[in-house]
Parts: sequence; C-alpha cells; structure tokens
Amino acid sequence: QAPVPPEDALRTAVAQGGFVWLGLYEPTETELAAIGNRYGLHPLAVEDAVYAHQRPKLEQYDDALFMVLKTATYVAHEELTATSEVVDTGEVMVFLGANYVITVRHGEHSGLAGLRVRLEEQRELLCLGPASVLYAVADLVVDTFVEVAGAVTDDVDELEASVFSPERTDDIGRLYQLKRELMGLRKAVGPLELPLQKLAERQIDVVPDAMRSYFRDVQDHAIRVRDQVGGLDELLSSILQASLARTTLADNEDMRKISAYAGIIAVPTAIAGIYGMNFEFMPELEWRYGYPVVLLVIATIVLLLYRGFKRNGWL
Amino acid sequence: QAPVPPEDALRTAVAQGGFVWLGLYEPTETELAAIGNRYGLHPLAVEDAVYAHQRPKLEQYDDALFMVLKTATYVAHEELTATSEVVDTGEVMVFLGANYVITVRHGEHSGLAGLRVRLEEQRELLCLGPASVLYAVADLVVDTFVEVAGAVTDDVDELEASVFSPERTDDIGRLYQLKRELMGLRKAVGPLELPLQKLAERQIDVVPDAMRSYFRDVQDHAIRVRDQVGGLDELLSSILQASLARTTLADNEDMRKISAYAGIIAVPTAIAGIYGMNFEFMPELEWRYGYPVVLLVIATIVLLLYRGFKRNGWL
Amino acid sequence: QAPVPPEDALRTAVAQGGFVWLGLYEPTETELAAIGNRYGLHPLAVEDAVYAHQRPKLEQYDDALFMVLKTATYVAHEELTATSEVVDTGEVMVFLGANYVITVRHGEHSGLAGLRVRLEEQRELLCLGPASVLYAVADLVVDTFVEVAGAVTDDVDELEASVFSPERTDDIGRLYQLKRELMGLRKAVGPLELPLQKLAERQIDVVPDAMRSYFRDVQDHAIRVRDQVGGLDELLSSILQASLARTTLADNEDMRKISAYAGIIAVPTAIAGIYGMNFEFMPELEWRYGYPVVLLVIATIVLLLYRGFKRNGWL
Amino acid sequence: QAPVPPEDALRTAVAQGGFVWLGLYEPTETELAAIGNRYGLHPLAVEDAVYAHQRPKLEQYDDALFMVLKTATYVAHEELTATSEVVDTGEVMVFLGANYVITVRHGEHSGLAGLRVRLEEQRELLCLGPASVLYAVADLVVDTFVEVAGAVTDDVDELEASVFSPERTDDIGRLYQLKRELMGLRKAVGPLELPLQKLAERQIDVVPDAMRSYFRDVQDHAIRVRDQVGGLDELLSSILQASLARTTLADNEDMRKISAYAGIIAVPTAIAGIYGMNFEFMPELEWRYGYPVVLLVIATIVLLLYRGFKRNGWL
Amino acid sequence: QAPVPPEDALRTAVAQGGFVWLGLYEPTETELAAIGNRYGLHPLAVEDAVYAHQRPKLEQYDDALFMVLKTATYVAHEELTATSEVVDTGEVMVFLGANYVITVRHGEHSGLAGLRVRLEEQRELLCLGPASVLYAVADLVVDTFVEVAGAVTDDVDELEASVFSPERTDDIGRLYQLKRELMGLRKAVGPLELPLQKLAERQIDVVPDAMRSYFRDVQDHAIRVRDQVGGLDELLSSILQASLARTTLADNEDMRKISAYAGIIAVPTAIAGIYGMNFEFMPELEWRYGYPVVLLVIATIVLLLYRGFKRNGWL
Repeated sequence: QAPVPPEDALRTAVAQGGFVWLGLYEPTETELAAIGNRYGLHPLAVEDAVYAHQRPKLEQYDDALFMVLKTATYVAHEELTATSEVVDTGEVMVFLGANYVITVRHGEHSGLAGLRVRLEEQRELLCLGPASVLYAVADLVVDTFVEVAGAVTDDVDELEASVFSPERTDDIGRLYQLKRELMGLRKAVGPLELPLQKLAERQIDVVPDAMRSYFRDVQDHAIRVRDQVGGLDELLSSILQASLARTTLADNEDMRKISAYAGIIAVPTAIAGIYGMNFEFMPELEWRYGYPVVLLVIATIVLLLYRGFKRNGWL
Repeated sequence: QAPVPPEDALRTAVAQGGFVWLGLYEPTETELAAIGNRYGLHPLAVEDAVYAHQRPKLEQYDDALFMVLKTATYVAHEELTATSEVVDTGEVMVFLGANYVITVRHGEHSGLAGLRVRLEEQRELLCLGPASVLYAVADLVVDTFVEVAGAVTDDVDELEASVFSPERTDDIGRLYQLKRELMGLRKAVGPLELPLQKLAERQIDVVPDAMRSYFRDVQDHAIRVRDQVGGLDELLSSILQASLARTTLADNEDMRKISAYAGIIAVPTAIAGIYGMNFEFMPELEWRYGYPVVLLVIATIVLLLYRGFKRNGWL
Repeated sequence: QAPVPPEDALRTAVAQGGFVWLGLYEPTETELAAIGNRYGLHPLAVEDAVYAHQRPKLEQYDDALFMVLKTATYVAHEELTATSEVVDTGEVMVFLGANYVITVRHGEHSGLAGLRVRLEEQRELLCLGPASVLYAVADLVVDTFVEVAGAVTDDVDELEASVFSPERTDDIGRLYQLKRELMGLRKAVGPLELPLQKLAERQIDVVPDAMRSYFRDVQDHAIRVRDQVGGLDELLSSILQASLARTTLADNEDMRKISAYAGIIAVPTAIAGIYGMNFEFMPELEWRYGYPVVLLVIATIVLLLYRGFKRNGWL
Repeated sequence: QAPVPPEDALRTAVAQGGFVWLGLYEPTETELAAIGNRYGLHPLAVEDAVYAHQRPKLEQYDDALFMVLKTATYVAHEELTATSEVVDTGEVMVFLGANYVITVRHGEHSGLAGLRVRLEEQRELLCLGPASVLYAVADLVVDTFVEVAGAVTDDVDELEASVFSPERTDDIGRLYQLKRELMGLRKAVGPLELPLQKLAERQIDVVPDAMRSYFRDVQDHAIRVRDQVGGLDELLSSILQASLARTTLADNEDMRKISAYAGIIAVPTAIAGIYGMNFEFMPELEWRYGYPVVLLVIATIVLLLYRGFKRNGWL
Repeated sequence: QAPVPPEDALRTAVAQGGFVWLGLYEPTETELAAIGNRYGLHPLAVEDAVYAHQRPKLEQYDDALFMVLKTATYVAHEELTATSEVVDTGEVMVFLGANYVITVRHGEHSGLAGLRVRLEEQRELLCLGPASVLYAVADLVVDTFVEVAGAVTDDVDELEASVFSPERTDDIGRLYQLKRELMGLRKAVGPLELPLQKLAERQIDVVPDAMRSYFRDVQDHAIRVRDQVGGLDELLSSILQASLARTTLADNEDMRKISAYAGIIAVPTAIAGIYGMNFEFMPELEWRYGYPVVLLVIATIVLLLYRGFKRNGWL
C-alpha cells in the first residue's frame, strides 16, 4: 500500500474503518496549528503541546482527550558526583480522538519508535482503536519510571554503603544531588496518577470499556513507583541525618584525641620549665640523681594521664 | 465616538449590546461607594476592594462576581543579599456583572494597560462578554507568576552553585531571604487555585460556558506555578541543610588541622624544655654531639607525627 | 422607656416585636442556670458557658445556637523577653434564640461595651434580629485577632532584624516565647473557621439568609488571620534555624581564629626552647649575630604562617 | 430486694422494664464466653474484650454495640526523671444491648465504682436506658484524660522553666520521657474521637436520640484534650530545640573563653622563652632594667589582648 | 478419596458442591498461565502474580477477586548491628472465584501450610466457601505483622536503654537500621488497610455477608499494627534526636574539661618561663627563698584556677 499524505490520512483511515496515528517531534506552532485545524484540536491544547514544561495532566474536550506525560531516563554515569545529572526528563503529549491519535514528543526520549513495532505485534490490542496507543505510551512511560527508580535505588544503596563505611567520605553533595533528582522524578510520576485513575474509572467516549483494566494496571505501576520514590526520599533524609551524625561524632572524637594528646604533652613542658628556672638556690639541681628522678616523675605522670584518658574514652 | 461619562456608560453600553469596563487605581472609599451604588455592587465587596491586603478569593453575589487576585513582580537586583526584596506584590480586584466589569488595582503593577490593547486585538474573545476581561486579568496575573517563579529559580540555582562551590561563602542570610520571598509568592498563588477551579467547573451566570476551558487553562498554569514554588521551597530547605552540613564539616576540618599542627609543635617545645633544665648532672649536655642528636630526635618525632596525622586524616 | 427587669424582658420584647440582649460577665452556675431555665437553654450549653477554657465551637440545639469564641488581646511590652506574655486570651459565649441573644464574657476583654454603641448606630443591621449581635461579636473578635496578628508581626520583624544584625544577640528565648504565643493565637483562630463557615453556608433557623454574606465576610477575615499566623509560625522556624546557623558559624569562626592565633604563638615558643637548651656544644650560641638571626627567623615564620592562615580563611 | 443471680438478671430486668449492668474485671475467656452466650454477644467482640491492648473503637453488631476505651491515670512522682512512668493506661470495654450493658475493665483503673454511685444519683439519666451507662463511662474516661493532660501540662511548664533557667541542667532525658508519655496519652485519646462522633451523630438503635447531645459533649471534651496534647507535644519539640540551642551556645561560649584565656597565657610563655635562650651576645640581658622592661612589655601585651578579646566577645 | 488431578479439580469440586484450593509456590509464567486459562483468571492479574514486588492491593474482576498481600517475618539475631536484616518480607497473592481459591507464594514464608490444618479444624468457617481461605490468609499475614511489630518494639526498647545508659555507645547505625526495617514493615502493612476495608464494607459477590465482620476484625488488627509501627517510627526519631543531643553534650563536656585542664597547665609553664630568662639583673633569682616562693605562687594560682573552673562547671 502506498504511503498516504497526512492531509488525506484521516479520510482514508475512516473510509477503511481504521484510525490515524501521527507521531511528531518538537513541532513548531504553525506546523501543529495546521494539523490541529484538520483534526479539530482545541487551540489551548495545541498551544500546550507546542511548549514543553507542562505538568502531567488529562484534559477532556467534547470528543477528544489531551494528555501530557513526563518521561524520564536514567543517565548512566561512571561515578555519582555532586553535579551529575541522574534523571533526564522529556515530555510526550497525546491527542486522542475517535479516529486518530497524535503523539508529540519533546526532549530526547528513545523508545517511542520501538513502541510502534511492539504495538503492531499485539494486533488484538490495536483493534481496540486509538486508545490502545495512548495505553501503550502511558505503559512505556511508566515502565521507564520503574527502570529509573530501580537505578536510583542502586545509587542510594551505594551511598548508604559509603556513609556507613569506616572511611571518611564526603557524601553530602551526592546526597543532595540524588535528592534533587528524585524531586524531578516525583514531579514526573506524582501528577500522573490522577489522569490514569480517570482513564481507568471514568466513562470516557474515546476509551472503550475493555481498555479500562489496562489503564488500571498502568495506574497500579505508577502508584508503585510513587511509593518507591517516596520511600527513597525518606531514606535519603535518614541517610543524610545518619551521615551528619556519624561525621560529627567522628570529628568530635578526633578533636578530643588531639586535644588530650596535646594536654599530655603540656605536662613535661611545665615540669621542665620549673627546673629551667635560674634561681640560685634550687637544691634539686645539685642532687646527683635529680635529673633522672625528674625524668622518671615526668614519665610516670604522662603514663598515668595516658591511662586515665584511655579509661575516660578521651584517647 | 465621543467619550461617554462614567455615569452614562452602563446605559449606553447596554443600549448598544456591549459592556462597560471601568479601570480604577487605588480609589477612595467614597469614590468606589458611588460607583458601587450605580452598578449595584455589594457593600461588603466594595469595602474589601478599597482596602488592600486581601487574600485571593472569589465571591458570588446574586448576579455578580467579586474576585481578588494578588499580583507579583520580580524586583531585579544586582546581587542577592539578606535584605533585598525579591518579590513585590500588589492586588487586583475585579467586579464582574452581566454588562460591566470593574477592575481595581492596588500597588504598582505594570501591564494592566497593555492588557486592554492585547484584548482589543483578540476581538473574538472580547465578544464573549465581560468575563473575557476577568479571564485576561487572571491570565496576565498568572503569567507574571510564571515569570517571577522563573526568575527566582535562577536565584536558587545561583545560590546552589555558591553553596557547592569550594569557596567559603555566607549563604544563610540569602537562603533565608529567598525562603521568605517564596512564602510571599506562595501566598499569592496558592489561594488562587480554588477560585479558578470554580470558574472552570461551576455553572456561573455571568461566565459563558465557552469561557470555561480558558479558565481551566489559567488554573492549569497556576497549579504549575504552585508546584514550582513548592519545589523551590523544598529545594531551599535541602540547600540550607547541605550548606550547613558542608560548612560545619569544613569548620571541623579546619579546627582539626589547626589543633593537630599545634599538637605537633608542642613536641619540640617539650623536649627542648627537658634539655633547658639546669641540673648540674645531665650527662647529655656535655656530649660532643648531644645538640645535633637531640635536633635529629625532634625532627624524627615531628616527621613521624606528621605522617601519622596525615594517615589519620587529621592534617 | 423604663428599664425592664430581666425576668420580664423576653415577654416585653416579644410583645413589641423586638428581641432581648443580655450581657453577662463571668456569671456563677446558679445565676446562669436561672436565666437558662427562663430562656430554655440546654443544660450542657449552660455548663459550658459557666466554665471557661472551652474551644471555639458552634452547637445547634432545636431552636437555638450556642457559640463559643476565644478572644485575644495584645499585651503591650517595653521589650520582648523570654517570659513576657504577648497574647492574652479570654472567652465569649453567645446563646442565640429566635427572640433573644445572651453573651457571656470570661477574662478581661475590652470592647464588647463599645459593641452595643456601634450596633445601635447600624440600625439596619439590628433589624435583622438577634443574629446581628452574634455577627457583631464574631466580627469584633476577629478584628482583634487581626490587630494582634499585626502586632505580633511587628515583633517578628524586630526579632528578624536582631537575628541578622552583626551583633551577637541571644534571641532563642525570645523566639521561643513568640512561638508559644502564636500557638495560643492559633488555638483561638483555627477552630473558629468551621463554625463561621456553617453560619455562612448552612440553612439555620435563627440566622436570616440576609446575614449569611456577613458571616462569610467574617470567615474570610478569620482565614486571613489563620494564614498570617501560620506564615508567622513558619517564619519563626526559619528565623530560629537561620539564627542557630549564623551563631554556630560565628562561634566556629571565633574558635578557629583563637586556635590559629595560639598555633602561631607556639612557634616562637618552640624555637626559643631549642636555643634555651643547655648543651655545651651549640655553635649557634656563640655566633656574633646568632640572636638577631634567630629573632629574624622567628619573625619570618610567624609572618608566613599568618599570611598562610589568612589565605586559608583561618584568621 | 434480694440480689439476683447473673443468670436470671436479664430476664428479671426485662420483666421489670429495667436493664442489667454487669461489671467485670479482667475476666477469663471462658467466663466471658459464658456470659457472651447468654447475652448473645458476637464471638469476635468477646475475644477482643478478653485480651487487652486493643485500640479505642466502636463496633456495631446487629442489635448491639461494642466499644473499647483506653483509660489513663497520672502517676504522681516526686521528681521527673528520664525513667519515671508518668501516664499509666488501662482499658474498659463496654457491650451495649437493648436491655443490658456489660463493662469489662483491664488494668488498674479507680473510679468505675464511684461511677455507679454517681449514676444512681442522676436518676433522670439512668432512665434513658443502658446507653446512659456507656455515656457515663465515656464521660469519666475523658474526664480522667483532662486531668492527666492538666498534670502533664504542669510537668511541661516545670521543664520549660528548667530549660530557660540560667543553671546548666540536663533536661534531654526528661524531655524525651515526657514526649513518650504524651505519645501514650495520644494513643488513648485520638482514636476515641470518631467513635464518640458516631454516637453523637449517627442514628443507632440502642442509643436514644436524647442521649446524643450528651455524647457530643463528651466528644467535645475529647477534642479539647487532643488539641491540648497536640499542643504539648509541639511545645516539647520547641523546648527541646531551644534547650539544645541554648546548651550548644553556652558550651561554645565556654570553649571560646577557655581557649582565649589559654591563648593569652601563651604570650608570656613565648616572650620568656625568647629571653631564656642561651646566646652569648644578647644585649638586652645585660641591660640594668631589662628584666622589669620585659615584664612590663608582657603585662601590656596581656592587657591589650585581654581588652581586645573582651571587645570581640571572646572572653 | 483418591487425589484429583488439578485439571479435573474444578469440575469435581463444583459437582460435589465444594470448592478448589490450589496452593502454588513461585510458579513460572507458563505454569500460571495454564492454570489461569482453565480458571478464567484475568491476564493482567496472572502477570502480577508471577512477578513479585507488587504492592498490597485488591482488584475486582467481573466474577473474581485478586488480592496481593506482603508478608513479614522477624529475623532473629544475636545482636542488632547496622547491617542486620531484621524484617524479611515475602508476598502472597490470592485469586478468589465462586468455586475456587488460588494462593501464590513468593519468598520464604512459613506457616501457610499450618494454615490448611488450622482451617480444616474450623469446619464452620470453611463452609462459608473459598472466601474463608482469603480471610484465613489475611488473618495469618496480619498476625505475623503483629508478631514482627512486637519483636521490633523489643529492639527499640533495647536501643532506648542503650542510648540513655551512661556508657558511650554508637547507636546511630543501629537506629538507622531499625528505621529502615520499619519502613519495610510499613510498606507491607499500610496499603493493606484499604483492601481489607473494602472486603469488610463493600458488597462483593464472592464474599458472603457473614464473612464481613471477620474481615473487619482483620482490618482492625491491621490498623493496630499500623499505629504501632507509626509510633515506633516516631519513637526512633525521638531516640535518635535524644541520642545525638546527649552525645554532643557529652563530647562538648569532654572537650571543655580537656581544654580547661590544659589551660591550667599553661600557667606554671608561663611563670617558670619568666624565671628561666637569662637577664643578669633579676633580683628574685638571688633571694634565699625565691624558688619555694615561686613554687607556692604557682601552686596557689593552679588551685584557684581549679576551684574557679569547678565552680564554672568547666571541670
């Protein structure tokens, strides 16, 4: 079958009892407006679809749905540093009508191409109409969330191990970075829950009833990711707290040790200072064994102090 | 067409099938009361409109709406200090009836003039009646929120960079200042959501059905700003925490280094003190190489301590 | 018109188409029980009205309302200290029936007298029946909240200035005190919102429909105060955090400076100690310029250390 | 009238138009099961009533109610320590049917005996049937909460005074202990609110309508206690924060003072060290007034340092 | 009766008026799919049942229920360390139809075998159909939660004792570990509440009405565990805070003592230094009792300092 020009696609599809699926990548306003005119999209939705930085939402127009999803990819990195971008987010908008589905992508997001292949294999799903594409997109997006959350969990585990390792490590920057990345992930996952619930529970014209349990499944996954991300966030807070506490205590111990050691050293200095005085009449100075006795006295005091400090936990 | 005196405006407008738009700037109570009498505004609403420091709200009277919006402007500044005012807020009140719309401005708020020009270009919107003016005002106000939130985001990014830079910077005052400014922004944005939702969802006489999706669009933007502001606030808390943690750890390290260094210095002092004692019988003093040997011993101990402290992470 | 004894008041008032307003100040149980019998008040409400320390609430009985309000007054004070009482609270209870209104005051609360004068000037309000008195009381109470919140805001601003001033000030006690006072204010304002909302929205026999927008106005003010108090509380937490952070950092800096200075002083001590040793063969001691050279060496080292420490930010 | 054996109680009571009130103290499972069979109690409720450590709840069975209440007693103590038990909790379960009420007590809880005496004086209340006993129990339980909360408030006030007193006190253990005790009280009070609300608002067969405002009164008291306990908890957090802040600052000040003083002492040591060197050519040593001049120099430096440190706030 | 092959089980059971109970342990996808086909399970539910790491939920399909429960076991350990796994979680999924119940277990979870024995003793429960198995599973799972929560409570008590003991202990790692384990338990308990509530309150085809109060009982236990876990979590936070506070204060005290002691030692050093100077004209040096007088002066100053520091609380 010869490729059909986009202008005729809708007519051809309806004539053949099928539907049109248009995939766009960062279209300009005029491009999308032209398509919007042909497919009867609402101007406000078209405007939203042109500019990225929307939040996930589902909007119902008379005979069409407009859905915004945020996507996330985990950026592999050699080592987690305070500046490494861990989660990269993009956006996918979907216009869903009775006979068409239009997907608009923003940002780098691999996999939406693989989507078409995957879908074409699941013919029975495709037969349910254009809503099956919306489902496939949402499912894929949430699946990437699951992956990203899993990868971030590994990062958190690594950080945890580092914090509780006996070495002195500087984890604060990395903890902060992960917290910030989790915030980005939360922004992508959290607001998605309500739209998915609507798709799963509400009677919507362009979504056949048989599709609902599919959306419920996606919603269930989204809730799981949200819980996981929330748990990670809580965990990071606990790790940060524990890290600070441990470091502070270790620092205090170091200072205590150094000071105790300096305090011990001050004793021979003081005693030697006494016998370094130049008084004419200092009988000890003329004693035959004055010197070794004083050395012995010093050594004894130092030893006693050392043992006392040890017992106190100061050394 | 000759300008119509305000007193006749309503009659003329109704006669011509149009509506009146009155724009007032900080009117006195008597001025507004006079207008209120002519247009049948509720006395409590008139009182609210005279005195600023209201919170955003929407009130429905029999055949009229009264809406309060807080506006925000970002105050450009050379450098963020602990006292710099970042967000400046004003207020706009709107009375909306079947044939009239009255806007009352408080505080300096540029752009409401540009609003009239903008609206006159969108004739199809103006045709929807006075509610289109309410929409335009709300849209403009939320747009300025978006701008302010963006500018504050830049400030937060700058602070973040400063906190994680290796230099020692005093960021606490600035962090506090930003937090406080965000609080002001939140007060302007937060309570606006519910009124906009009512305008978008509820059946209201003076708001034509066709206007609802416009208000939903504004509500959507308001939610986005609210989320952004909430995220910034959370981020600031994390930055503050990280900043404190880093500074404390750096301070501890400094103290440890200084103390360790002083501890090392104490060793030659003590040893030299021993050989500065004036005992008559101190055989070492008469040795030919006593002096260089002691110097060597001191140097060795100092070196060993230095290496030990280095290995401990104390220096 | 001759004063009517309380016993006959109700009958006289009903006969003349008016209503009775009884104002009581801390009545005993028997006094109030007597009045309660005559006016048919519910025994549990009477009991509540006798004992103060109620929380704000609205209770509906068959044909009567019982409302408890907490009042607040700002206690002027020369200087804010850790023990100064800032907010003083009292209570007003109101019984509202078809033909009567009974107000019971607890604690010192000026202004309920001025209330009667004010109300008598607003004849059109009084014509709406006894509910107008309830409105006037609620309005007055919330107005005093607004005043108190304003005064506390000034206190917070003063504290903020003190915390961020370069001087070392002890603000913790004062911060705690303000926090505690705010807690008292919050207890008075918070639970008032729901009763006011009920009065504004619900169909209640003894409250004429025309009064509802008045109660909505009061509710609106109460929400504003609640928001303001909530904001102040949040601000105080931030100020406390910032105050602690600043003081800790300043303390650390002081310690670092003192230690660094002591560390520098240790150097001449050590070097001088070396040349204070009594070895017989110390060639430097016999050099012609040994002494000035050593002084120079000491001065050089001290200077280098000083500059190094300065560069490190240790001094 | 002769005492009626429990077996015949119900029949006798119904015959005489009265009701049975059985009071049990920690019955065994078999004892209670026997009674449960006779009175038709639900087996799950019987099981719950045998084992303590239930949480407060209200369960409705076909023609019966089962309510669990936690009781609290304040344990008087000489002095608040980190281990003193402040709040002691027990449990009361109530089975309520059309003609009977069965109370089961766990733990030491004085006063349920006094309850019967009290109730028998209020004949008009008892006439309302077995629900009046449930009311009396709930009222008594909440009254003890009020008492306990009052006593704990005194403890908190005492702690507050101790924290803000100028002496150095160790309040952390005690703060923690009170916090923990409050948690126990909260567990007893919090879940009680909903059951009481149900009793006050819902149409329940075994609770006559006239009893509802009584339960509303109890609910009101429970809310007040919950608010009070919540406030105390918040207060304790603030006190802990303030206590830590104050102690840390005081500790820092002590360290600063000690270090500054040690720093001053280091100056004469260094200078004296210089003149303790054994160089042959040190002209100052031969000066007639070298010694007093050096002493003067030392004294001057020490004085200047002392004044400088004072001005810096270091001493 | 001869064992029936799984393929015929359903037919045989229905024919005999009974039901089938299939128990599977970590089945493969194909195994479960085969069974799913025979019993008409929903493919999405089958997929969920194969892969563990689901969250507790209840899903209703046309004529079947699918429930996921997380199980928990307390891992006994010699001593609580920072890495000891305390709570081990597994999963049980239950498919419930009119004539069958299928349980799928993941992870090690003892006791589900004992379940069958227990159930077969309670014949009257089994007579209520397959829902009784779901109840028994849920009851067992929640019972293990109760046990685990009890064991963790003991751990918390132990930690608490350790924190408030006078010895210096490192509890941070253990506190963190318990917090993390509690998080795992919370994830298992929290989401279970809603499904149980649905089973207890909602009209569901495959759950006979008589079973509802049983599920309410389980829900009640789940709520109790949730409250207990929440309380433990709060307690851990308080303990951590108290632990940090106590350790910090103890550390500060140690440092203060060491510094004060070093400060005292500095005094004889300085004075001895003075009399160690080599000036020619130092009259004190030639005094007969110069030496003992200086020793006395030193001893006096040290004693005075010692007493002053004691009084200051520095020693």
